[in-house]
Amino acid sequence: MTVTLEALNAMDAAAFAAAVGESFELAPWVAEAAAAKRPFPTVTALHEAMFAAVRTAPREAQLAFVRNHPDLGGKVATADSRREQASAGLDAMPADEFARFHRLNDAYKAKFGFPFIVCVRRHTRESILAQFERRLRNDAAAEFATALQEIFLITRLRLSGAVTGQGMPQVAGRISTHVLDTHAGRPAAGMAVELCELAGEQAHRVAQAITNADGRTDQPLIADRPVPIGRYELRFAVGDHFRSRGIAQAEPPFLDLVPIRFSVAEAEGHYHVPLLCTPWSYSTYRGS
Amino acid sequence: MTVTLEALNAMDAAAFAAAVGESFELAPWVAEAAAAKRPFPTVTALHEAMFAAVRTAPREAQLAFVRNHPDLGGKVATADSRREQASAGLDAMPADEFARFHRLNDAYKAKFGFPFIVCVRRHTRESILAQFERRLRNDAAAEFATALQEIFLITRLRLSGAVTGQGMPQVAGRISTHVLDTHAGRPAAGMAVELCELAGEQAHRVAQAITNADGRTDQPLIADRPVPIGRYELRFAVGDHFRSRGIAQAEPPFLDLVPIRFSVAEAEGHYHVPLLCTPWSYSTYRGS
Amino acid sequence: MTVTLEALNAMDAAAFAAAVGESFELAPWVAEAAAAKRPFPTVTALHEAMFAAVRTAPREAQLAFVRNHPDLGGKVATADSRREQASAGLDAMPADEFARFHRLNDAYKAKFGFPFIVCVRRHTRESILAQFERRLRNDAAAEFATALQEIFLITRLRLSGAVTGQGMPQVAGRISTHVLDTHAGRPAAGMAVELCELAGEQAHRVAQAITNADGRTDQPLIADRPVPIGRYELRFAVGDHFRSRGIAQAEPPFLDLVPIRFSVAEAEGHYHVPLLCTPWSYSTYRGS
Amino acid sequence: MTVTLEALNAMDAAAFAAAVGESFELAPWVAEAAAAKRPFPTVTALHEAMFAAVRTAPREAQLAFVRNHPDLGGKVATADSRREQASAGLDAMPADEFARFHRLNDAYKAKFGFPFIVCVRRHTRESILAQFERRLRNDAAAEFATALQEIFLITRLRLSGAVTGQGMPQVAGRISTHVLDTHAGRPAAGMAVELCELAGEQAHRVAQAITNADGRTDQPLIADRPVPIGRYELRFAVGDHFRSRGIAQAEPPFLDLVPIRFSVAEAEGHYHVPLLCTPWSYSTYRGS
Repeated sequence: MTVTLEALNAMDAAAFAAAVGESFELAPWVAEAAAAKRPFPTVTALHEAMFAAVRTAPREAQLAFVRNHPDLGGKVATADSRREQASAGLDAMPADEFARFHRLNDAYKAKFGFPFIVCVRRHTRESILAQFERRLRNDAAAEFATALQEIFLITRLRLSGAVTGQGMPQVAGRISTHVLDTHAGRPAAGMAVELCELAGEQAHRVAQAITNADGRTDQPLIADRPVPIGRYELRFAVGDHFRSRGIAQAEPPFLDLVPIRFSVAEAEGHYHVPLLCTPWSYSTYRGS
Repeated sequence: MTVTLEALNAMDAAAFAAAVGESFELAPWVAEAAAAKRPFPTVTALHEAMFAAVRTAPREAQLAFVRNHPDLGGKVATADSRREQASAGLDAMPADEFARFHRLNDAYKAKFGFPFIVCVRRHTRESILAQFERRLRNDAAAEFATALQEIFLITRLRLSGAVTGQGMPQVAGRISTHVLDTHAGRPAAGMAVELCELAGEQAHRVAQAITNADGRTDQPLIADRPVPIGRYELRFAVGDHFRSRGIAQAEPPFLDLVPIRFSVAEAEGHYHVPLLCTPWSYSTYRGS
Repeated sequence: MTVTLEALNAMDAAAFAAAVGESFELAPWVAEAAAAKRPFPTVTALHEAMFAAVRTAPREAQLAFVRNHPDLGGKVATADSRREQASAGLDAMPADEFARFHRLNDAYKAKFGFPFIVCVRRHTRESILAQFERRLRNDAAAEFATALQEIFLITRLRLSGAVTGQGMPQVAGRISTHVLDTHAGRPAAGMAVELCELAGEQAHRVAQAITNADGRTDQPLIADRPVPIGRYELRFAVGDHFRSRGIAQAEPPFLDLVPIRFSVAEAEGHYHVPLLCTPWSYSTYRGS
Repeated sequence: MTVTLEALNAMDAAAFAAAVGESFELAPWVAEAAAAKRPFPTVTALHEAMFAAVRTAPREAQLAFVRNHPDLGGKVATADSRREQASAGLDAMPADEFARFHRLNDAYKAKFGFPFIVCVRRHTRESILAQFERRLRNDAAAEFATALQEIFLITRLRLSGAVTGQGMPQVAGRISTHVLDTHAGRPAAGMAVELCELAGEQAHRVAQAITNADGRTDQPLIADRPVPIGRYELRFAVGDHFRSRGIAQAEPPFLDLVPIRFSVAEAEGHYHVPLLCTPWSYSTYRGS
């Protein structure tokens, strides 16, 4: 259920607060403060006005707000939090990893006095753990600022899903590819491609496709949402492609499944990762 | 313990047979036949003369000879066989794989009446299994010829290890690499490189090195022996290299560990697999 | 001055012939024959109907039609011919080349009894000369068929310029480029690019551009017309690009102006020729 | 005629001065000073001792020594100078370039009071002109130091040609190439390669070769001497190579003659410039 910016601008204050208030976890006062600033020309302006209410709130109110966020991997108080944690698989961790989260949460809260907050939809589980360990080393002031910045990202993403209209915040990234067969001098059509997310030594597939006549996939492998920060592997069935073209290859072929391993550092970035290949060589690069 | 070709040429027939007879599994008559053909100008000629004794033997003698070879993964009658089977890890298989070998051996012997023979030092365990299943589909004549050809390869390799002298058979292959940092326009020195052998989803490391000032490893990653036919992955620590050069990279870096997966089809081939890399791109190819 | 297919379908026969007749050099009977076949659903169908009149005409009428075409590089009877010959510079040849055309024309007419016909807008001058010499070696039947095929291409192109409407023939090719700076991992913006047509040892510039933020040129280097068959050189100011980024280079830089030389064989093809570059390396390929 | 270091160390002072004195243009006192420092363990030490005599000479003696050098492109007093100037074609300049050298020489001498000195064997004519114009903008002190440094390079090169023995100075650079056919996955054998030196829009061939079975040229394209600083173009007959392999290509082929243009900045450097190619793509890089 989304609401238009136009409708939000025209609602009475209570209806406005009801419509967008939940983006800010258990903090209805944020929407109340923003209601008075309407109309907003863009969804981005709406979000900035709501977050300004947080930024200019008294320290105690900020702290209470931060403390109201759920533990990562723990029980959650809101539907939004539940969906978000599920997006990174935090609702289904193996026992040892769950225990590790639990220990990190305890250590974090003991040091900072509030729960660890991260915009989980912008991260893989591996990246969340890396953030956790790095941020535990922050001092209190830096970490409080970081927590607020993560809330900025969380609420921007929630609002982008709840409201439509002019000037949407830029919250989506993309992973795409393009395969050129430089043996034939044309796009590699019909090649199977997989995208896997990596965690430790494990890989799990998050997308698969067959290249079209232009050597691209009909849809980007990830689009219309943040690309979780983390490690990925594209896998291209290069051996099958040349076999289907009837090109003589060694047996087994020198190149069969070609893995391209890369990391995403900007969840809102566009990661175009092409492959130029022959049966005996290939190149890849961050493209555009 | 090796012997020189010169010495072999000068020995009496009994000493000659004692010195080289074991290369042909439980078949002293091979060396006896070859003894009379001395002197040999090259070690290759010695091997060809010994194998000619097999090739021209009556069918029943050939069959008896073939039948004297041990089961793969089973108990072995000679020290040579034991070492060879260990080279591909056949002496230390997990239970399920051992059972699979056992079933394949039984099916093979039921169909052909002799044990499955393959020059195991020219194969990974994965490739041996692939050969096993493919050759089970052969007809009897083709398979008998294949078994003799494998014995040719086994004995050539044994003899190469037992005799030194002019005209050694070409039994060694090679895997090597070379890393160019095309961001700096010079060899990538000090980069960690690993070579893994792949089996199913598993990888086990068979060599590791640090590139020298010329971007090469001081020694080839595999040399002076057959390169087991199978699948490999080279892993290059590209992210660490650019970090140590102080080049600004994303966090995590776009490229960190770069895997290059390739197959070896010719155990005596030279597989030179270079990497040209920047923090944002790389190329590889079968070089020379 | 163009006319719509719809209007052509609705005209009386005389007006139709007046509107499209000139596409077929001095052969008003072609349009007359096609007028009776109206209405045409597509411009392609119109052209095919007109050309069918040529193809099914008696041999003497075909020959007369062919003979009515002007000498290449000679005086021309129609405005279309004049413009076309100017497109390949045939109206402004140096004296020695003019003499060479003259000799080839005489030899051709002496052998075949009609003038050399080629769709000049699909060729560079160098390519026209190469065609001339190759086709002089044809036999009479093959060459007559070739002449008709060239008339098919000429008239298709003329009609595409004279008529607008549904189902236009595909007569345009394209040359485009894209520059990636794989040192920085992003598009190379602001790089000067030139496209030169080559003739013997000479190069003359036919397009120039500066790459935009996406590393592309705002417009293709050639588009909306046939790409003349022939040799080309793209020239990229790679040294200036890295100098403007403040990247340390040798003095003079290892790479400065990077030339990519390629040939166009299909005038209606899309030639996408990207460049991936660092200060020390580059790659190019026929892309898509 | 060369002399050994051993012989030089054993000669009387007069013979020593006669043997090596000419390396320092019209300055016999240099060899006389160095004679007393014998024996020298290396040729490099010999040269350094001779040059130390210049470096520690009174300013007037240095200036007289510098002034005794001939005008570039002018008449020369010694056989060494004559050969060196010929190496860069300074003895055979077109009239306009000769006039330009003459004007630059006059301007230079008017400003600095001594002739323009450059180690011509380390430069192309184009690079000499570039040096000339740049150095004219120096102040007197910087330019005097530069002139002495060039004399260091000139005399080191002369001495390297005149004396043999331990510890030769490193005065030679190299240009080499290697062609890989990544369509076939093996070295490109039998490919014609040319190396041209560029000057303005002109190219003149300085080496040519056919690649051997390893895709290399039997000899480097330039070796055993300084590589003149300047611009070069390697030209590879890629189209002919694939035609001879019987690979279907477009007509004309997309790639025919592939030019790689690069500059040499260090006359003693090793410039290895490989080509990886298919009929539709290629890569090059500064290798090692």
